[in-house]
Amino acid sequence: MQQKSNQIEETAQTPDSQVIYGRNSVIETLKTVEAADTLYLSGADTDKALGYIVALAKQKGAVIKKVPELKLSKLCASEHHQGVALLCPVCRYCTLDELFENAAQSGEPPLFVVTDGIEDPHNLGAIIRTAECVGAHGVVIPKRGNCAVTSAVHRASAGACSCMKIARVSNLASAIRDMKKRGVFFYCADMDGSPAFQTDLTGPAALVVGSEGFGVSRLVKELCDITVSLPIRGQINSLNASVAAGVLLYEILRQRTQ
Amino acid sequence: MQQKSNQIEETAQTPDSQVIYGRNSVIETLKTVEAADTLYLSGADTDKALGYIVALAKQKGAVIKKVPELKLSKLCASEHHQGVALLCPVCRYCTLDELFENAAQSGEPPLFVVTDGIEDPHNLGAIIRTAECVGAHGVVIPKRGNCAVTSAVHRASAGACSCMKIARVSNLASAIRDMKKRGVFFYCADMDGSPAFQTDLTGPAALVVGSEGFGVSRLVKELCDITVSLPIRGQINSLNASVAAGVLLYEILRQRTQ
Repeated sequence: MQQKSNQIEETAQTPDSQVIYGRNSVIETLKTVEAADTLYLSGADTDKALGYIVALAKQKGAVIKKVPELKLSKLCASEHHQGVALLCPVCRYCTLDELFENAAQSGEPPLFVVTDGIEDPHNLGAIIRTAECVGAHGVVIPKRGNCAVTSAVHRASAGACSCMKIARVSNLASAIRDMKKRGVFFYCADMDGSPAFQTDLTGPAALVVGSEGFGVSRLVKELCDITVSLPIRGQINSLNASVAAGVLLYEILRQRTQ
Repeated sequence: MQQKSNQIEETAQTPDSQVIYGRNSVIETLKTVEAADTLYLSGADTDKALGYIVALAKQKGAVIKKVPELKLSKLCASEHHQGVALLCPVCRYCTLDELFENAAQSGEPPLFVVTDGIEDPHNLGAIIRTAECVGAHGVVIPKRGNCAVTSAVHRASAGACSCMKIARVSNLASAIRDMKKRGVFFYCADMDGSPAFQTDLTGPAALVVGSEGFGVSRLVKELCDITVSLPIRGQINSLNASVAAGVLLYEILRQRTQ
């Protein structure tokens, strides 16, 4: 048993592969990923949901391996794996060109989300998840000062990272200038801007979301075409970053479809 | 030093008090709480933000204590305290009557949020935070199967728990029946409902939010007047619970103010 477990740890999570865990995340990942390496199970695969996961994993070419509970927790670096983990290729980051191609193919005005300084994997995951749900054509994240698409982000995104086109850029300011040249209008989500519900959000758009502590950085904010804000009626004057992004993305979708 | 630290651990976190940590959460809590017991600092209180926190804490009658970094982490059961923790009375839960009084005093149609099975403290905290931001008059949480207002919830709410009226009820179904008798219309947030953006949300309203895994429980859903859904354009067919609640609460605010 010990030998078997060691073998798992040696083969798992390389720079090119990642571990996704938790039933929902594994299911959503399996639905969208082109191929998976290995499915690890700690319990008996008799219940309905696990049977479904095993079938899906086999379709995507994964090897099925049973492992002790404790080893699975080690592999996931978490106990919240619900008895299942998937080893699969890491997020393949896209180029900005691919994001624009994706938008062109949809026949809709481009809709992108740009994060600036989102370091919490739960927030980044929730933002990517909402971007996917509203039908955004891509997410742009900077290499510095922003969380990369890690296993935790993947999990928080409920698998949305697998089907969302994500570009990771070295220089966010250059990327924004490039995207503006291609006709994208930049909306900066921050305090003291134009009221979002009274602002026209129907054109080719990128929504820029900053960190909760510091907001969008000054240089990036200056590059944006307009700052948009949500009304605040209470004493707490800021929303969770992923909630603010969600409300604004849905406001864009609402305006576009009405 | 050791003796001093032991003393802290003995006096901290009783059933009647809680530890709030992290600079933003401590600031927001201090702004809204009537009185605080103790402010713990692990570093030198020389930087500007800490000076502000210390001044606020003194205003609310708190004793200021310096403690070693490690002891502060133990006290908070977390390393994410940013050198500051506050010991203060736990959330005082309100009655439904108090929630309605709060609504009546505002002169607006009542707006409440009801959670059903939200077990993740981050989600509950973010929901309470958004409820506070949109000016909701109260949050109702059930005693069973739902996270209580713990220190983690408080932190995730950025202090909103201190200024939001929260009722914790033994029987959620009875509470809903009672609130319906008082004229509140219940909107259940779930899949396969009426499109939220085409539904009139301007009257006295309670938004019911269920858990991510299981949604709103069947009994509670049956008690609701209508189910409302957000459009989904992607492959991932569900939003994070706090994001969904945020989008719907802001849609209510948008409709009410336009």
